[in-house]
Amino acid sequence: MRKRFSASQYAEAILAGDKIMLARAISLIESLLPQDIELSQKVLEKILPFTGKSLRIGITGVPGVGKSTFIEQFGLLMLENTEKKLAVLAIDPSSSKTKGSILGDKTRMERLALHPRAYIRPSPAGNTLGGTAQKTRETMLLCEAAGFDLIFVETVGVGQSETAVKAMTDFFLLLMLAGAGDELQGIKKGIMEMADMLVITKADGENKHKALVAKNEYESALHLFRHSEAWQVPVLTCSALEKTGLAEIAQSVEQYVDFSKKQGIFEAKRLSQQIGWFRESLKNGILAKFYQEKSFLELVATAEKAITDGKKEAFQAAQEILKKIDCKF
Amino acid sequence: MRKRFSASQYAEAILAGDKIMLARAISLIESLLPQDIELSQKVLEKILPFTGKSLRIGITGVPGVGKSTFIEQFGLLMLENTEKKLAVLAIDPSSSKTKGSILGDKTRMERLALHPRAYIRPSPAGNTLGGTAQKTRETMLLCEAAGFDLIFVETVGVGQSETAVKAMTDFFLLLMLAGAGDELQGIKKGIMEMADMLVITKADGENKHKALVAKNEYESALHLFRHSEAWQVPVLTCSALEKTGLAEIAQSVEQYVDFSKKQGIFEAKRLSQQIGWFRESLKNGILAKFYQEKSFLELVATAEKAITDGKKEAFQAAQEILKKIDCKF
Repeated sequence: MRKRFSASQYAEAILAGDKIMLARAISLIESLLPQDIELSQKVLEKILPFTGKSLRIGITGVPGVGKSTFIEQFGLLMLENTEKKLAVLAIDPSSSKTKGSILGDKTRMERLALHPRAYIRPSPAGNTLGGTAQKTRETMLLCEAAGFDLIFVETVGVGQSETAVKAMTDFFLLLMLAGAGDELQGIKKGIMEMADMLVITKADGENKHKALVAKNEYESALHLFRHSEAWQVPVLTCSALEKTGLAEIAQSVEQYVDFSKKQGIFEAKRLSQQIGWFRESLKNGILAKFYQEKSFLELVATAEKAITDGKKEAFQAAQEILKKIDCKF
Repeated sequence: MRKRFSASQYAEAILAGDKIMLARAISLIESLLPQDIELSQKVLEKILPFTGKSLRIGITGVPGVGKSTFIEQFGLLMLENTEKKLAVLAIDPSSSKTKGSILGDKTRMERLALHPRAYIRPSPAGNTLGGTAQKTRETMLLCEAAGFDLIFVETVGVGQSETAVKAMTDFFLLLMLAGAGDELQGIKKGIMEMADMLVITKADGENKHKALVAKNEYESALHLFRHSEAWQVPVLTCSALEKTGLAEIAQSVEQYVDFSKKQGIFEAKRLSQQIGWFRESLKNGILAKFYQEKSFLELVATAEKAITDGKKEAFQAAQEILKKIDCKF
């Protein structure tokens, strides 16, 4: 049996930068057991005053764009000549299907995983309750409390989780392939509009010219969009293989942070994200009050059996349960 | 002030095919007022035994594909030489943004709108509570009770509502443009995988050749996907302008219905949709118990003010409200 620690023990260890206890606390957040969730909420309450101080970067791009390699090389660069600590998290609402495909294998970022100031957390398993985004956000808070001042949140880039990542990060970076055609990349205009920076990957060898052509094309295309913050979205190229272009990307991220802090955008965005988090946490929390109760799940199972047996209609079955519910607040 | 009818009055009038009372009942479903919602649920309970007998067809395609024209011409054809009644509904979760762009203007389908056996219902306005899909489903049930035995559910085709439409229809029809390139059409592979039929529109005049080329291309592409039901997804072309190809589409839909009924797929799909509807109705219903209460909305507003003023953190604010909630069932 797993040893149980108290919320205070967790909080103290996390604030001291204990990676093992951090990992355990994240597992509590990802757990579906009511007692684990309750404990994780207590831990979060304790570490809350020590959160919010990191730079949060969302990174997306379709499979094949070289996301892992980019994150590894860019991450290593960001850790060079600093005392910074980097946590790489993943959000993947459809992870029950694509389980293992995103950060599922730490060895994909072997060098970064071995770095003493890096922490890579694979994507949690699928969760029927939804709330995957909330779990990633809470994991981010734990990492911040553990002293990580740079957080990368990776998404699979197929259009489901980008909004959620945008809503929890300060900077949103979109990785693109040169000459693959937008249709292959599955990148929708909506995602391009969200980006604070476009990076064309694999700009090396024979690909270099194609990357420059793509850069020009995307720059033109971006003139059609107006970034909500009067920020001219840069289009950069890089090669994780030849290790070129990465320093320029780091510099451009820094420029954005300076710009958005000076304009008050950085803080305003964080505040509006807080409102969004609050609304989502509240809804998830209300639903959890029911779906974490065994007796409620039994009601649901009985109703679903009646529907499957053709004895009840969906609407009617839902109404019957809803009529039994009495709430006070 | 609007005259109030009882649930029985609504139900009787709807079952008698009264279009005005049908429209009023749909407005109740779309209303955000607790008393309207309560009444609409009572109406639904009464008409429930008279639902489920229509053929439900989902129709999607990006703006510009000619969806309205197709629906009008195809609808008119389906009504020819029959006693069938057709209802055209729309689902549009993002309607607060695109309000009016989808069926917002009935005049886009003037001839169909004037047909005595057709009923066109524009998309409801945006609704922060979510549940747009649920409202469309409930509207569909009302239409079925009013004797509509053919239902078209239209979506905007930008990838947000297709899953919801697939989950409420028996047949899913994807409209495509020839030679527009997938990237322009914004059609994602996931949507193509959901389709039971592909129809290339505007196959007329100079476009005819391009449409045939596209037909071949899509047929090849479809071999890469395996339809979940051993159904060979047909790729057809049509011209709403020249009124060609529509009869073939109608025939192919009929073939699918025969096929899926013989294989038991039709009923099995309806049953699994019922389970999905039940789960969603239950969650929406639980949330409504809170978000329809003025005093709860006041708690939320106070918390959001505290967050905006920087006095509370999102997580903490949500926990405080959740701790006040006591539920019995």
